[in-house]
Amino acid sequence: MAQQRSSCLAVALVLLFLASGVSPWAAAQMPRREPTPNDTLKSPEVLPDHRVTFRIYAPKASEVSVSGDWIAQGRGVGGKLEKDDKGVWSITVGPLVPDFYSYTLTVDGVRTIDPKNAMIKQGVASVDSMFEVPGEEAAFQALGPVPHGDIRIVWYQSKALDTMRSMHIYTPPGYESGKAKYPVFYLLHGGGDEDSGWSTIGRAGFILDNLLAAKKAKPMIVVMPNGSMPRPANAAPMMPGSPGAATANAATQDRFADELLNNVIPYVEKNYRVLANGENRAIAGLSMGGGQTLRIAPSNLDKFAYVGVWSSGVNQQMTADFEKRNAQFFESPDKTNKMLKLFWIGVGEKDQLANAGAKNLAELLKAHGITYEFHESEGGHTWINWRHYLSDYAQLLFR
Amino acid sequence: MAQQRSSCLAVALVLLFLASGVSPWAAAQMPRREPTPNDTLKSPEVLPDHRVTFRIYAPKASEVSVSGDWIAQGRGVGGKLEKDDKGVWSITVGPLVPDFYSYTLTVDGVRTIDPKNAMIKQGVASVDSMFEVPGEEAAFQALGPVPHGDIRIVWYQSKALDTMRSMHIYTPPGYESGKAKYPVFYLLHGGGDEDSGWSTIGRAGFILDNLLAAKKAKPMIVVMPNGSMPRPANAAPMMPGSPGAATANAATQDRFADELLNNVIPYVEKNYRVLANGENRAIAGLSMGGGQTLRIAPSNLDKFAYVGVWSSGVNQQMTADFEKRNAQFFESPDKTNKMLKLFWIGVGEKDQLANAGAKNLAELLKAHGITYEFHESEGGHTWINWRHYLSDYAQLLFR
Repeated sequence: MAQQRSSCLAVALVLLFLASGVSPWAAAQMPRREPTPNDTLKSPEVLPDHRVTFRIYAPKASEVSVSGDWIAQGRGVGGKLEKDDKGVWSITVGPLVPDFYSYTLTVDGVRTIDPKNAMIKQGVASVDSMFEVPGEEAAFQALGPVPHGDIRIVWYQSKALDTMRSMHIYTPPGYESGKAKYPVFYLLHGGGDEDSGWSTIGRAGFILDNLLAAKKAKPMIVVMPNGSMPRPANAAPMMPGSPGAATANAATQDRFADELLNNVIPYVEKNYRVLANGENRAIAGLSMGGGQTLRIAPSNLDKFAYVGVWSSGVNQQMTADFEKRNAQFFESPDKTNKMLKLFWIGVGEKDQLANAGAKNLAELLKAHGITYEFHESEGGHTWINWRHYLSDYAQLLFR
Repeated sequence: MAQQRSSCLAVALVLLFLASGVSPWAAAQMPRREPTPNDTLKSPEVLPDHRVTFRIYAPKASEVSVSGDWIAQGRGVGGKLEKDDKGVWSITVGPLVPDFYSYTLTVDGVRTIDPKNAMIKQGVASVDSMFEVPGEEAAFQALGPVPHGDIRIVWYQSKALDTMRSMHIYTPPGYESGKAKYPVFYLLHGGGDEDSGWSTIGRAGFILDNLLAAKKAKPMIVVMPNGSMPRPANAAPMMPGSPGAATANAATQDRFADELLNNVIPYVEKNYRVLANGENRAIAGLSMGGGQTLRIAPSNLDKFAYVGVWSSGVNQQMTADFEKRNAQFFESPDKTNKMLKLFWIGVGEKDQLANAGAKNLAELLKAHGITYEFHESEGGHTWINWRHYLSDYAQLLFR
């Protein structure tokens, strides 16, 4: 009887909410059970002093931990959460430098996003949670009251893959109502990510909006294709360290080169108002995307006058192969330097994956007399660095 | 010593992958620990007979369950997963009708997305996992080899909220390179969702692409604003059932009406090539968005000739108030029927939240001599129904 009355109340409340604009789901769940600490739990909570508290309601769990990209950047620690007597686990980290951060929770060995946080970053095979610590240091990438370009999700027919494929394209403020033609920047993500990465955790649209509002960059279109390629069907099996692995990986990389040069660029140049020549094309990529940039740009210098290689490089064992593949790029440095408006290398000093390879690449360019810029930043192999590289690099383009 | 050797091997492998295009993260994690069942675990797995297996590695958990929208639709059950001796929990449900489905897992009381599934649907305060059971019944919403429109994420300055706000806008194939002007369909989401919902779980772009390729709909722009509004600062506190609640909710709803009529529509008509008159504007919304549609459209009939109300309605207690607010709409049915090209109501027969309200709305229109269509579908208050309503309704627009 009590249950029936409570159920009628629920229906009445729901109808009220339905008619009036509040979530019927939230309403529907209200009167059906006893409240728990989870109902009002907030996570993450960014405190005024820039410390951050993570909380999760998991009364039955025996171990909960948090890990995030501020750790690899050397900005703080993560670790085990502590449980209170109501079943809420929590930890406070920081203070953190104002920035955007990504993290995941691990509950009894299961990696999960923060159930209380809807701000997410999507990868090919995983999802992370995100948060912002607002402040002056993060202003260059913040959503502000400035004119905003659009981010477009564009589906096109990929001949290389024989399937529909998506890319994200940023068009600057004024593109829609104007008639001007724009230069194009092809911006590549890293391994495990896809074409949405630069627009979510990468903040590419907001970074460009802020640069343009401050007149620190030229208006440009930014094309962010999907660089995660299925390996060709005829490629050798992938066994790390096996003789066939390097060959198979090169085939995968060439598949992306084919996709970019013969599908993505022609699509963009057919459908957008662009300046379609090498001096008005830039390319840059991080990590795997830096490897793709190195595979594509030096051997297609007529197509890209601006080259950015971030948190990537050429390791010593690959040096000879890289020189051989790019003989034309290296053989006449004067000619190369004339065509190449910018070769910009960025890497974190704590980046164990890429620091040595980036430095080796710089040495290699130096030895051949190719002009480049080398920027070593703090921290590691993180989006924290890549957003700064984008902001720094974009200011130098198409000048 | 052994640890050091293994760490060197890791670095060497990572450099190889970095140079060659495979995720350095995946590579970096390879040699550092013993493999677990989680490494190769697949979830969800859609079986050839349309049953679906969910799996999660959670060796320490004591209870895991799955819940999804096929349950509310009456297409099957969810429930508890069973644990094997390796710590992998699993359950097989279905067979399910080919469609897109959303679900979440609950591990020892903690609601989470499926850690092995990167296909997600984002809400205001929560994230769900998604999967597709491919097949003929789902073809109308599938990603196919047809021309595709773009989905644009557009930021604009909201005067009503004094903040930047985003909306999603679908432009049909050919918009970018053409010169024609298009009619505009304003498509509203439900409570708990935001402006991305119709483009992810709602499949709006793909549904329109498929209709256009089959010449079953007129080319149109579809504008999907964010309908989740913060309540006005001066609104009464929200206590369900309290005398002030209905007033406070009406104020929130009017805030959205203001946003749509005075910010969103002017922005769209300034920046896009649109036919800017009532005969070329449609509006529709689901659940909370249906309530918003009812708040906006009948009192602005000169602005919207096509009206869709999905899984929403007017409950009996609100009938008198609704009639009073819309006296002009009801007082001269001939005039109203002449301006109104379509009033389309859709609701699921098992929709406990909205079925009665939708039927009451239909009765009300009938009693006043207003022409409408009433469509009762199978199932409940789910995206499964809303995608079908969109496909059915869009075919009738701008004829």
